[in-house]
Amino acid sequence: MTLDEILKEIKKAEKIVILTHESPDGDAVGSSLAMKLMVEQLGKNADVIIPEYSRMFNFLPSADSIKSDSEIKNYDLAISVDCANLKRLAKNEYFEKAKKTIVIDHHGTNNMYGDINYVNPVSPACCEILASMVDYYNINVSKEIGTCIMAGIITDTGGFSHVGITPDTFEYTAELIRKGVDIPDIYKRTMRTKTKANFELTKRVIDRMELLENGKVSFTYITTQDEIEVGAEPGDHEGLVDIGKDIEGVKVSVFIRQKEQEDLYKVSLRSEDDINVSDICFVFGGGGHARAAGALIAGNIEQVKEKLMKEIKKWME
Amino acid sequence: MTLDEILKEIKKAEKIVILTHESPDGDAVGSSLAMKLMVEQLGKNADVIIPEYSRMFNFLPSADSIKSDSEIKNYDLAISVDCANLKRLAKNEYFEKAKKTIVIDHHGTNNMYGDINYVNPVSPACCEILASMVDYYNINVSKEIGTCIMAGIITDTGGFSHVGITPDTFEYTAELIRKGVDIPDIYKRTMRTKTKANFELTKRVIDRMELLENGKVSFTYITTQDEIEVGAEPGDHEGLVDIGKDIEGVKVSVFIRQKEQEDLYKVSLRSEDDINVSDICFVFGGGGHARAAGALIAGNIEQVKEKLMKEIKKWME
Repeated sequence: MTLDEILKEIKKAEKIVILTHESPDGDAVGSSLAMKLMVEQLGKNADVIIPEYSRMFNFLPSADSIKSDSEIKNYDLAISVDCANLKRLAKNEYFEKAKKTIVIDHHGTNNMYGDINYVNPVSPACCEILASMVDYYNINVSKEIGTCIMAGIITDTGGFSHVGITPDTFEYTAELIRKGVDIPDIYKRTMRTKTKANFELTKRVIDRMELLENGKVSFTYITTQDEIEVGAEPGDHEGLVDIGKDIEGVKVSVFIRQKEQEDLYKVSLRSEDDINVSDICFVFGGGGHARAAGALIAGNIEQVKEKLMKEIKKWME
Repeated sequence: MTLDEILKEIKKAEKIVILTHESPDGDAVGSSLAMKLMVEQLGKNADVIIPEYSRMFNFLPSADSIKSDSEIKNYDLAISVDCANLKRLAKNEYFEKAKKTIVIDHHGTNNMYGDINYVNPVSPACCEILASMVDYYNINVSKEIGTCIMAGIITDTGGFSHVGITPDTFEYTAELIRKGVDIPDIYKRTMRTKTKANFELTKRVIDRMELLENGKVSFTYITTQDEIEVGAEPGDHEGLVDIGKDIEGVKVSVFIRQKEQEDLYKVSLRSEDDINVSDICFVFGGGGHARAAGALIAGNIEQVKEKLMKEIKKWME
């Protein structure tokens, strides 16, 4: 069984590193820290390397141990969590140079880039896979591990709201509340609290919202200039992508965010029901989940919009 | 036991009416319909009278049976759900003229205005009280009853996020998913979907947002003119009150909405942690819960703001 192999590698390794995808969300940071705490319960230490993440996640247990880089070049074991491919993995040089590599993920597009791959695309969050590992290894679910796991589950299920959520997730949550995990606190910190910069960006995103294709597609954007003006920090763009999605009648929401290079945009697509936005993003070399996906597209705002709309139209009846 | 008395009254009555509070939210409409379906399972019929409610709730089972009025003047039994006092009860004349009255509620401020009162202020939603009744009466939890109950639980717990939520709520939710209740669908319809009018009101509320008292209080408003301009229907102001609350540093959020009379505003307060907004609203003859309360205050926008801030300041350290 894969989980036994993973355990064997953890027990064997001296120097372990845990990595996750760039622009890490709650499931990425939560999985990384839960993995670290799990490794510690197995009697080992691990470095978590995340070069940049939202200060929103600083409340998570062991967040103060997150490194932006490391002096160790060749780890015995590298564990990637919540990341579909090597290209998206932040600080992937540590993964490439490690003697042994493990991939733990829940993305359907995962291309199995590790020596050992434990991928379950049905799992609503990578953290829920970690929960099953904790259980399999008979590790005590401390309040700390539980808090990291719930941060991932809450954020990746959209606060217990996404299609595909199972009774198991709710039962597991009940179990963790009984162990002292504070769900409303995690919920508030990861899902609700808007920094002032995020609030200012929200204002701009809403003011610029366009409804296209008879109201079936919403489109909005932010530029690097916006982020400078509001004093945005990493993570301050979180949640902006969802604003268009919730407008009545919208089937696909598009949110584009300018990258450092002037003519390059990070595109985020969200959908309801039957439109697979992962397929649309795939055309541009991106990917993700059926209802949440992304890609990088070159051009100015109008050009990116045009390229995207051309593809999106193909999926509209 | 109170529940046995309630059952006796339902069995005895021929003409039953179910009422709830004005400007009904998901818990009010969900409780009313769940109560009706429960009464039907007990072999009786009941009228649900709600004069005005958001079309957002039209997807709920039996919503098409909701009446805005009735030709029956003297019901044998009136059941009030989710309403703290007689004054707030919509169409309360049916309650006053009924031969027997029952109050089922979860507001701490409930003043026990029924012949029989079943009030549990610890329950996160009135619908969760109905769930315990369904269980006590050994009624089959159909998908229909489950959907109505979950609409109340989801909306009144802020989508499983509010302080005080218990493992029981999560376990009960898991149970209902197994019975075929579609949580993501209910969640989306009651919590996420914004009508275009609601989206336009959101834009105005955000543009007008003021942060007062060193960012501890947020203040914003809408007028009847706004509602006319965006073509708002009943319920289109839902969720606007929460926008200010989620800004980092805000302890109390204030949202005021003009009533039909020019110089009268419906005030809605939300708070985090230690500030009891029910106490603040009580000063103005209103009430509610510790973290969500309301009142009616006379004056223009500036006057209402001034009156409110004077009281709110007393609660700030």
